[in-house]
Amino acid sequence: MIGRIYLLLILLLCVNLSSNAKNINKSQYRVPNADELLYLELDVGLVIIELNSLFAPRHVAQIKQLVRNKFYNGLTFYRVIGGFVAQAGTSVDEDNGNPDFEIKNKSLQLPIEPRITNTDSKTFTLVQSPDMFAAQTGFIDGFGVAKNNEDSMTWLTHCPGVIGMSRNNDPNTATTDFYIVIGQAPRYLDSIMTIFGRVIYGMDIVQRINRGNVNNNGMFNNNKATTIKNISVASDLPKSKQFKIMVERTNTIAFKNKLSKRRIRTDPFFYVKPPQVLDICQIPVKTVIF
Amino acid sequence: MIGRIYLLLILLLCVNLSSNAKNINKSQYRVPNADELLYLELDVGLVIIELNSLFAPRHVAQIKQLVRNKFYNGLTFYRVIGGFVAQAGTSVDEDNGNPDFEIKNKSLQLPIEPRITNTDSKTFTLVQSPDMFAAQTGFIDGFGVAKNNEDSMTWLTHCPGVIGMSRNNDPNTATTDFYIVIGQAPRYLDSIMTIFGRVIYGMDIVQRINRGNVNNNGMFNNNKATTIKNISVASDLPKSKQFKIMVERTNTIAFKNKLSKRRIRTDPFFYVKPPQVLDICQIPVKTVIF
Repeated sequence: MIGRIYLLLILLLCVNLSSNAKNINKSQYRVPNADELLYLELDVGLVIIELNSLFAPRHVAQIKQLVRNKFYNGLTFYRVIGGFVAQAGTSVDEDNGNPDFEIKNKSLQLPIEPRITNTDSKTFTLVQSPDMFAAQTGFIDGFGVAKNNEDSMTWLTHCPGVIGMSRNNDPNTATTDFYIVIGQAPRYLDSIMTIFGRVIYGMDIVQRINRGNVNNNGMFNNNKATTIKNISVASDLPKSKQFKIMVERTNTIAFKNKLSKRRIRTDPFFYVKPPQVLDICQIPVKTVIF
Repeated sequence: MIGRIYLLLILLLCVNLSSNAKNINKSQYRVPNADELLYLELDVGLVIIELNSLFAPRHVAQIKQLVRNKFYNGLTFYRVIGGFVAQAGTSVDEDNGNPDFEIKNKSLQLPIEPRITNTDSKTFTLVQSPDMFAAQTGFIDGFGVAKNNEDSMTWLTHCPGVIGMSRNNDPNTATTDFYIVIGQAPRYLDSIMTIFGRVIYGMDIVQRINRGNVNNNGMFNNNKATTIKNISVASDLPKSKQFKIMVERTNTIAFKNKLSKRRIRTDPFFYVKPPQVLDICQIPVKTVIF
């Protein structure tokens, strides 16, 4: 049954080819580097994640290494809180007392990725100033970012669909486990958790991940946790298994015009005009898949 | 297959009975009026909606009348945009040119519900002032609201899970079709669309509603739109088919303390403290179901 649905999905993707290709202006899109894409295969379908080596170089390198070692295949989304996060990998809590695991993990421990200095006005597109959680928000390569006014320090924002690294209280204890934001942006986590990518295709599939027990911090009391069938780095797959993907550029005149139209609504539907502010996490960035 | 999953869901709800009942302090919860609850049954499971007659009395009355006339049974979520809204009912667009439909709908047209004056400090709990979209935000009976400073005019906010009434450009054209917010809060719709309820149970089920074609404003090109099996007003069902539901009160000392702890994080996990601001749409209000 599930296999059939999956096959159907693949077929539908193929059927979409012609209509998707026709309707887009290619100068407003970019083709992500296949070496920076993960294909996350769940029972319920395929999710595609774009990694972000600009903001999280060490985390991206480690995740890719773990993926290539097939570390995640067969593991589950073991902590899932509706409206918040779906967390996957090996539960550190569950493995307490297993000395092999502890040793293995110590060698994998990564320091949290620092904020970066971004003064490249060609890549950054301002969205909102001030935002409730930061002096500025904007986009860099499709990712929501926040920024200080004084020193141009820039960091990724916890918008729905971002993927970040779980850790213990010590900020330098991220090893293998990750979470995907599945609800209203938990912006209070910005820059104290390392975001290393975002879902660019298949958030509807992510939303089908089974939820855990809310009375037990989203952990499961049963065996219903959704399993990761496989994760691959796209560039490791034969060309025939790679989708052609294009992601909307967020620094074009066209995209900036789209932002202006969202900020100042002229459509007669808005018979009373909304406040002229934009939530960085409520602006769609299109992905087209062939 | 789907029937089995649904049965399993019902069983799981029952199994949860004892653990849920044990862990809650009943003074911090209220039992919603069964006359203000809708049971929305989809193929993928059960969703429970609490209506809001304080803010949307005419819309609630009309929706209950339509539900009791079985208007929605068999209709679909015909426009579904991931990260935005799932819209159901009869597509006005699709029925253009059908004179019966037009006549029927004209008689159902409702004026948009106005903002209300709320000066009852016992029900309102302040969350954030200023918020990016309003002078104040807060809760009234579990619903996110926004408020002016000057005149205490209050309106419901478009947080994930709210259910509102679709309309045409004319603000007084809502008739039968409704939408559920399934992504980051589209706050720019606040007070220009009528919100009349919110999902208090089953957002994971709502998230399983099939998405439409993003290139066609979320409409479907195929027959995959998710069907509404049935909607009932809870109080119309035999007692044996009504769940016992309790919803966290949002005006207790305990809830206000929870807000304070979210605003000022003392947990060592927050090795750098987040900005002391709260997003009205990112604060969970618990529902317990027996």
